[in-house]
Amino acid sequence: MTEPMTGPTAVSDKVERWAVHELALPGPADGNPFADVELRVTYRFRNRVVTVDGFYDGDGVYRARFMPDREGRWEYVTSSSAPELDGHRGELLCTPPGPGNHGPVGVHGAHHFAYADGTRYDCIGTTCYHWTYESQELQELTLEGLRGSPFDKVRMCLLPTNGMRPDRLPFVGNEPGQVDVSRFDVEFFRHFEGRVADLLALGIQADLILFHPYDKGFWGFDGLTPEQDAHFLKYVVARLGAYRNVWWSLSNEYDFNRNKTIADWDRLLQLVQRHDPYQRLRSIHNGTKMYEIFSPYDFTKPWITHQSVQHWDGGEVGAWRACPKPVVLDEIGYEGNAGRRWGNLTAQELVHRFWQGMTLGGYVGHGESFVDRETRAWISIGGRLYGESSPRLAFLRDFMAGLPRLANGDVDPARCVLHYVGDRQPASVELDLPADAEYRVELIDTFAMTVEEVPGRFRGRSTIPLPQRPYLVLRGVR
Amino acid sequence: MTEPMTGPTAVSDKVERWAVHELALPGPADGNPFADVELRVTYRFRNRVVTVDGFYDGDGVYRARFMPDREGRWEYVTSSSAPELDGHRGELLCTPPGPGNHGPVGVHGAHHFAYADGTRYDCIGTTCYHWTYESQELQELTLEGLRGSPFDKVRMCLLPTNGMRPDRLPFVGNEPGQVDVSRFDVEFFRHFEGRVADLLALGIQADLILFHPYDKGFWGFDGLTPEQDAHFLKYVVARLGAYRNVWWSLSNEYDFNRNKTIADWDRLLQLVQRHDPYQRLRSIHNGTKMYEIFSPYDFTKPWITHQSVQHWDGGEVGAWRACPKPVVLDEIGYEGNAGRRWGNLTAQELVHRFWQGMTLGGYVGHGESFVDRETRAWISIGGRLYGESSPRLAFLRDFMAGLPRLANGDVDPARCVLHYVGDRQPASVELDLPADAEYRVELIDTFAMTVEEVPGRFRGRSTIPLPQRPYLVLRGVR
Repeated sequence: MTEPMTGPTAVSDKVERWAVHELALPGPADGNPFADVELRVTYRFRNRVVTVDGFYDGDGVYRARFMPDREGRWEYVTSSSAPELDGHRGELLCTPPGPGNHGPVGVHGAHHFAYADGTRYDCIGTTCYHWTYESQELQELTLEGLRGSPFDKVRMCLLPTNGMRPDRLPFVGNEPGQVDVSRFDVEFFRHFEGRVADLLALGIQADLILFHPYDKGFWGFDGLTPEQDAHFLKYVVARLGAYRNVWWSLSNEYDFNRNKTIADWDRLLQLVQRHDPYQRLRSIHNGTKMYEIFSPYDFTKPWITHQSVQHWDGGEVGAWRACPKPVVLDEIGYEGNAGRRWGNLTAQELVHRFWQGMTLGGYVGHGESFVDRETRAWISIGGRLYGESSPRLAFLRDFMAGLPRLANGDVDPARCVLHYVGDRQPASVELDLPADAEYRVELIDTFAMTVEEVPGRFRGRSTIPLPQRPYLVLRGVR
Repeated sequence: MTEPMTGPTAVSDKVERWAVHELALPGPADGNPFADVELRVTYRFRNRVVTVDGFYDGDGVYRARFMPDREGRWEYVTSSSAPELDGHRGELLCTPPGPGNHGPVGVHGAHHFAYADGTRYDCIGTTCYHWTYESQELQELTLEGLRGSPFDKVRMCLLPTNGMRPDRLPFVGNEPGQVDVSRFDVEFFRHFEGRVADLLALGIQADLILFHPYDKGFWGFDGLTPEQDAHFLKYVVARLGAYRNVWWSLSNEYDFNRNKTIADWDRLLQLVQRHDPYQRLRSIHNGTKMYEIFSPYDFTKPWITHQSVQHWDGGEVGAWRACPKPVVLDEIGYEGNAGRRWGNLTAQELVHRFWQGMTLGGYVGHGESFVDRETRAWISIGGRLYGESSPRLAFLRDFMAGLPRLANGDVDPARCVLHYVGDRQPASVELDLPADAEYRVELIDTFAMTVEEVPGRFRGRSTIPLPQRPYLVLRGVR
């Protein structure tokens, strides 16, 4: 995949493949530079051309960020409605990726993910909606918790909820009713993108939730005009899109937002699709009235890359796989002791739901909501993990990563037969092994995290005796 | 309720109230006495008249059985198509009920049950479909198991399934294809009704399943003609209806029988309604494709006394109570280790489902299906109970029996507030206590079977802290 440099010319800017090249230019500071000035930068590598939007970063400084995806010399040229920003030229040298840099995650096969260098992406996410809004100390605690966790994706919100009174927001101002949504708080974004970079350093994807319905008119951000929405999204994509660990989640629980229609979400998703030169993973997450109402977005629409599902039943993954896009059960219920029923699962139940969904070829997201501990609920603010599920999910992650796979990312049924027995306790199960080879069978206790071999060798449909306890999985291997 | 005798005349036959009076008369033995001879007996107490069908019991003997429901002198007279059975007169003295005889169970209020003497009936049933078909030794074991259990109802089948080859069936013959469905095997019935009487002696209701769909053409009993069905039902009602612990379950999983339509079941239910002089409890039990398809009979139909539901979710009881008839979740899944998912619940899960259904004002039925023990699955043949649920259901039964109730049988919300927390583990719950009095609150661990008092006194909506474990229930009492 490594490409040679295109010529002998020396270039001063060096950036490794899939890292961020940033260009800074002085420009007009009068009026509303966020709205008044257009800046685009066109990067060229041989016959490959990528155009990115620049953004105003305050104090008369404009920036453009770019993630090169080919090694070698890139040239760029700016174009702008402001003469002083227009026609700047330069070049950069894209060097090989450093250790641990596998590139951005994309869809692999129909239902899986891989990094750009072909490495499988495990996709065991978690949720810390507003962790970047907390104290520095708590944010560090969150990063420390994530570092020791199995999680490789975090769902996190840009916008505050109606219950929050942060010093800084994405927009200028922090008094409800007095926020200027035509201007962005560059300090907010500098901090936020720093946290995105911190996650990147940990190898964690930042699944950015761009809108949510928890405003209820307090800030008004869930009911902006189409022009305001577009202005916001364009700025966010320009500032954050170059970070290779960014995913776009257009909204959390989109169907709970009464100010917007499906047509609005269609338009906003397409807007992100149009502005994002990297085509980062892009979806939109439904709400549920848990255990009753389920109205996912139509994930077959072409601007959707993966199915970001909220549902309580991992057993439905098989049905959702009828749509040829990865199934990510971003919310399946949380371990914890909250009062609401989305937030008081036992560890056993949450781990069970993970195994159900993952053995069916989906991906499941974690969350914790303990309400009486030193730090508040992990799903809201990050902090510390208290539950018993996360070590089991590390075990699950290792297990899934060790399975032999087909080229399309599915588990190879000839080399590995999985049977998750679930929360039941049958005395035996029929394991459908291929008849053309002998198999060893392992019995895995998903909660005790033990693996033992079932005595004997098996071939074809085989009856495997089980101990009388739930949460077991069988793996037949050649 | 005790009524005086109606006159000074001495009567030789004495029978206690709600017990069985049996009349035996010699009659024609030629032809097919089961089909050819009509016998009815009319019993009269003052202005109360009850007419029962007699039945042929082989060897030229005809019998009629009658359950008197008033104390005092009853007179009877026979009428028959056979002259030698016609016009016999006699009388019997109905005496007060003996110890433990509370009469038959009937509906109490909209959603509950009571014995005829007003005693509350707890309704914690179990299922042993073909226990009467097993060896004598095993049947005794079943009775012993029931004696030590909390169960006060047994669902049991009259007809064998396609997998069985019993010596005796309700009909004459035991070779598939050579059974004469126009004649009944009186030895089978003598044995069967003996077992019904054994249950009665234990204070257990016999929920008799008259048809089932597990024949699949082997015996042909699930596809009899309307005339054959009617002949069978009339005989069964005549022989068994006088036992006060009999309930009629027209069919198990009626919707799995492809030979019959809803109109057929309507007709057969009405036929039992017409022939049964006691109006025993009468329902019909749906099948489910568990966790997917649920098509209960329309229980609002007037010939249905209670809702005999098969469903996996005790949480639905509230919805079913919209129909003003008792909800009996006769099948909600079984504790055990069978291969099929209806039969491998953990004890925790089954007990959980019971508490869900019962605290919502329904009744739930038990079953066990351990497949690798000394005796085969309890739900099929009885035998021994191996599970951990039944002692917990005894605890539940005692708990429910101790609750203060309104006249209609519902728990009195002024004197007792229940909150079943379920399989979740919230740190606290809001208990909606009335504001007009102080309440003590008890914390019950439904699986550990412990009761402890929550410190303090509570009034109105109160936050009650909980330990971090599932399967808890709160009870607020004055």
